[in-house]
Amino acid sequence: MRSHYCGQLETSLVDQPVTLCGWVNKRRDLGGLIFIDMRDRTGLVQVVFDPDQQALFETANKLRQEFCIRLTGTVRARPDSQINKSMATGAVEVMATELEIISRAEPLPIDFNQQVSEEQRLRYRYLDLRRPNMSHNLQFRAKVTSAVRRFLDDNGFLDIETPMLTRATPEGARDYLVPSRTHKGKFFALPQSPQLFKQLLMMSGFDRYYQIVKCFRDEDLRADRQPEFTQIDIETSFMSADQVMAVTEQMVRGLFQQMLDVDLGEFPRMTWHEAMRRFGSDKPDLRNPLELVDVADVLQEVEFKVFSGPANDPKGRVAALKVPGKADAISRKAIDEYTNFVGIYGAKGLAWMKINDLAAGREGVQSPVLKFIPDAALTAILERTAAANGDIIFFGADKASVVAEAMGALRLKVGQDFDLVSDEWRPLWVVDFPMFEEADGRLYAIHHPFTAPVNVTAEELKANPEAALSNAYDMVLNGVEVGGGSVRIHNNDMQQAAFEILGIGKAEAQEKFGFLLEALKYGTPPHAGLAFGLDRLVMLMVGASSIREVIAFPKTTTAACVLTDAPGVANPEALAELHVAVTVKDS
Amino acid sequence: MRSHYCGQLETSLVDQPVTLCGWVNKRRDLGGLIFIDMRDRTGLVQVVFDPDQQALFETANKLRQEFCIRLTGTVRARPDSQINKSMATGAVEVMATELEIISRAEPLPIDFNQQVSEEQRLRYRYLDLRRPNMSHNLQFRAKVTSAVRRFLDDNGFLDIETPMLTRATPEGARDYLVPSRTHKGKFFALPQSPQLFKQLLMMSGFDRYYQIVKCFRDEDLRADRQPEFTQIDIETSFMSADQVMAVTEQMVRGLFQQMLDVDLGEFPRMTWHEAMRRFGSDKPDLRNPLELVDVADVLQEVEFKVFSGPANDPKGRVAALKVPGKADAISRKAIDEYTNFVGIYGAKGLAWMKINDLAAGREGVQSPVLKFIPDAALTAILERTAAANGDIIFFGADKASVVAEAMGALRLKVGQDFDLVSDEWRPLWVVDFPMFEEADGRLYAIHHPFTAPVNVTAEELKANPEAALSNAYDMVLNGVEVGGGSVRIHNNDMQQAAFEILGIGKAEAQEKFGFLLEALKYGTPPHAGLAFGLDRLVMLMVGASSIREVIAFPKTTTAACVLTDAPGVANPEALAELHVAVTVKDS
Repeated sequence: MRSHYCGQLETSLVDQPVTLCGWVNKRRDLGGLIFIDMRDRTGLVQVVFDPDQQALFETANKLRQEFCIRLTGTVRARPDSQINKSMATGAVEVMATELEIISRAEPLPIDFNQQVSEEQRLRYRYLDLRRPNMSHNLQFRAKVTSAVRRFLDDNGFLDIETPMLTRATPEGARDYLVPSRTHKGKFFALPQSPQLFKQLLMMSGFDRYYQIVKCFRDEDLRADRQPEFTQIDIETSFMSADQVMAVTEQMVRGLFQQMLDVDLGEFPRMTWHEAMRRFGSDKPDLRNPLELVDVADVLQEVEFKVFSGPANDPKGRVAALKVPGKADAISRKAIDEYTNFVGIYGAKGLAWMKINDLAAGREGVQSPVLKFIPDAALTAILERTAAANGDIIFFGADKASVVAEAMGALRLKVGQDFDLVSDEWRPLWVVDFPMFEEADGRLYAIHHPFTAPVNVTAEELKANPEAALSNAYDMVLNGVEVGGGSVRIHNNDMQQAAFEILGIGKAEAQEKFGFLLEALKYGTPPHAGLAFGLDRLVMLMVGASSIREVIAFPKTTTAACVLTDAPGVANPEALAELHVAVTVKDS
Repeated sequence: MRSHYCGQLETSLVDQPVTLCGWVNKRRDLGGLIFIDMRDRTGLVQVVFDPDQQALFETANKLRQEFCIRLTGTVRARPDSQINKSMATGAVEVMATELEIISRAEPLPIDFNQQVSEEQRLRYRYLDLRRPNMSHNLQFRAKVTSAVRRFLDDNGFLDIETPMLTRATPEGARDYLVPSRTHKGKFFALPQSPQLFKQLLMMSGFDRYYQIVKCFRDEDLRADRQPEFTQIDIETSFMSADQVMAVTEQMVRGLFQQMLDVDLGEFPRMTWHEAMRRFGSDKPDLRNPLELVDVADVLQEVEFKVFSGPANDPKGRVAALKVPGKADAISRKAIDEYTNFVGIYGAKGLAWMKINDLAAGREGVQSPVLKFIPDAALTAILERTAAANGDIIFFGADKASVVAEAMGALRLKVGQDFDLVSDEWRPLWVVDFPMFEEADGRLYAIHHPFTAPVNVTAEELKANPEAALSNAYDMVLNGVEVGGGSVRIHNNDMQQAAFEILGIGKAEAQEKFGFLLEALKYGTPPHAGLAFGLDRLVMLMVGASSIREVIAFPKTTTAACVLTDAPGVANPEALAELHVAVTVKDS
């Protein structure tokens, strides 16, 4: 029905007839002529209707915004004075010769040119997706998946599908459950990831696997979470952590080169401990120049318990965050707001110190806690933070985890507030995670229970689990974890040890993961893998503020689809067949 | 860890050192040497261990089937007498120099060389997938999806993901339901297809969409059905049925060329009516030379009600199926069996006629119904079926739908029993389906309620729905429907008419499809699409007997996964959070 897309028209086509199919983006009547901007997925082009062609002009006069039309005309160059440089096709226009109105549009329920609530945008998503930036986001996403697939195909990875209706997976989030009709009272779970299946595929000898696959977590949602999200899921056999990082880094570097013409360079590596120490985060945003500085050692003897308590506690931490040159800019009121802010992360307060005049010694320092800090400690702090006149220093003192979280968050917030974040791409690998973290008196896996430790035997792991490092790696880009993975445990003893440490007893392990433990007995290859969050990666690449901007039909933050009105009330007969009943009246 | 894959070794590598990773496929001890066939996903190669290398030989002596090993050695040419032509690498072998046992294997629970029950195969699927033909099937499937994606990407189709957690879809099969935690008492449905979403994407202007996507139907299973299956889902705007057929035919033709070196040629088209008349099926297997011949017109006057009843009924049919040269081969007992067979499809009997001697007239014909058939009718039947001596003719007389189904099935069965099915690829398009079929006094959509009729207005459609043809098309290959699609309704009036004819009242239409009816108001483009069943297509291409042979982790016929033991009992707390309870005790 068309000879060209709107966005393809350019001066080389001048004087040629073209037929376009698309939508009326905008209509203007000017000097007795009718102008429309006609739109399809490739872009816009201006069309002109001349009143000399009466029948055509009358049809054109019926056009309204978002009518779907088919149009034939001749491409002509615009006069120099009318060239529109903000439009890709702005050097040309189409002189219309034929027009067919394919379907009319009622006045739109959402205005493309005004800010519309996200609720309305999602309710009329099919219209919202006509907006050029949303169309671009999804076209960009399609190009990303295509490029990823080509890279992986070309590198010997096999796209193998794993089940969606499966057994509860052990990632730790809440599962979506699906009642079985044939197995009364039993339920499938939708996968939180294909983790175990991809490991089984390695045991089957497929050597290199990938899948771009939907995963599901029934969690309360945030801006960058959705109940269903998409993973680029990768697993390899006979490859070391370094090799997996090398090939996936190559993939991401190629993607940025191809899609954005950006050279990410070689990704630096940072240990988890260094990341926590310098940035209070396992996904540091390296575009932000602020860093935490540890000062516990110089505060152990002070009489101020807020400092000396954590400074003397092996699990405590005291860290300083210097913000250069912002002593004046950060008022008492701003400090109070930051104090409230770190409170969200569990910090009980926020000590601070403004450096007015270094040459003046103690007199030149303004701080409510100054009186508690002896000269030697003050000098050490000022030296260690390389403080200068006009700087402000914040202090966090608490359990190490609280300090990292609160001061890491403060670092990001201050960086944002004062526009300190540079406009660049800063990828890195975070490595050497601890295997386990302690909470509520028991140990949890930082990655998942199938992650291999670095260089220990099963016996050694059991003897001192908290000291063990895992052979895991996260790819972090501009403060966002875009991917993470690990070398997996490939023998039964080690897997049993990991379960034991996590408090998963023999019976429970057998019941939940018996098939995995069994599979480990039959010549399991060493294997390692990684998964990328596709939504987040694309969100970063297009510069969107939420993953909902790169998903065609996302759910709201209450996990609903306002377009189709899902979830909905189920047919009682269907529920009876599934052997379940609703336990709330007010549905 | 490896320098080569096993399957890559060939004479050009002779005298070169290689390092391989893989499994012990087989071990043989012969003439004081140890031979193993070493396997990875690319194939097998023979490795030789010489007792002169004592330490190496001792390690080799520990090898058992399916040990996972890393091996270094030198490639050498086999002597002419020992070249194994049934092995791709049979011209070479590897003289081992180093061997590392990576992981041991206990004796296998399934024997690769013996017939094993499918239950056992599925329980140990990770081992079953090591068998070369299963490994081949899944590698072949990965190549198919890769080729399909490249074709579609290169032709401007955008891969756009649609939701898995959605509203019940209208395909008619039973939905899998997913209770919502945040919306008490409400349920998502897993999609039977992305039908409505892909139509919405056309309304958004994406122009060409595709997705290789999981779909779900909670139906009782057959050999070629699975609760979750994979569709190659396609939708286009501004393209006619012919254009959609052309581009998808080109895709499939390219796929067969590339994967199997088979030229499918141009696909013939056949109307649904012709397919039903000649083959009693809307997915005729053209490799089978047998055809049905209608004979109702010559039997209207006979006194035998079994024939004259259907012959005079406008909804009846009398059809003959001639099996050339099988009069002797098909005994009375065989005829009884065929009679039982057609009974499965609702036929109340199976009349037959053996042609012993055409020259002898009535005397030369043997048939229990001969006495009811006057000379003129007999002559007409023999002429029309072009009967010859030694032929047998079966007759079906009943409602047209019963005759088509029973005689269509008999045609396939006889074709199989006597090996009449040629060994070739016979694709075709079936077109011009009726819009609706009648059952139990109401009308059902033969495709789905969004299929556009050919050349009628909404008013005309409502006036005579049973006469309307749909603008739908099925791609059939060797008797299997591999794909199907249609032009969609793209205006509100027509969509409302279709719902009305299907007995979907205004209120129900609004409740279920309100968003679609609303979307149709805003400049909907004409659109058309198609979906292929990927599992079936790959099954056909690799010559497997079941789609389970081309799915990594399929469900059993009771919709269970015996490997992971899914579905399983749900945690009561999880169910409480989801506001549902199990209504059966014996779970």
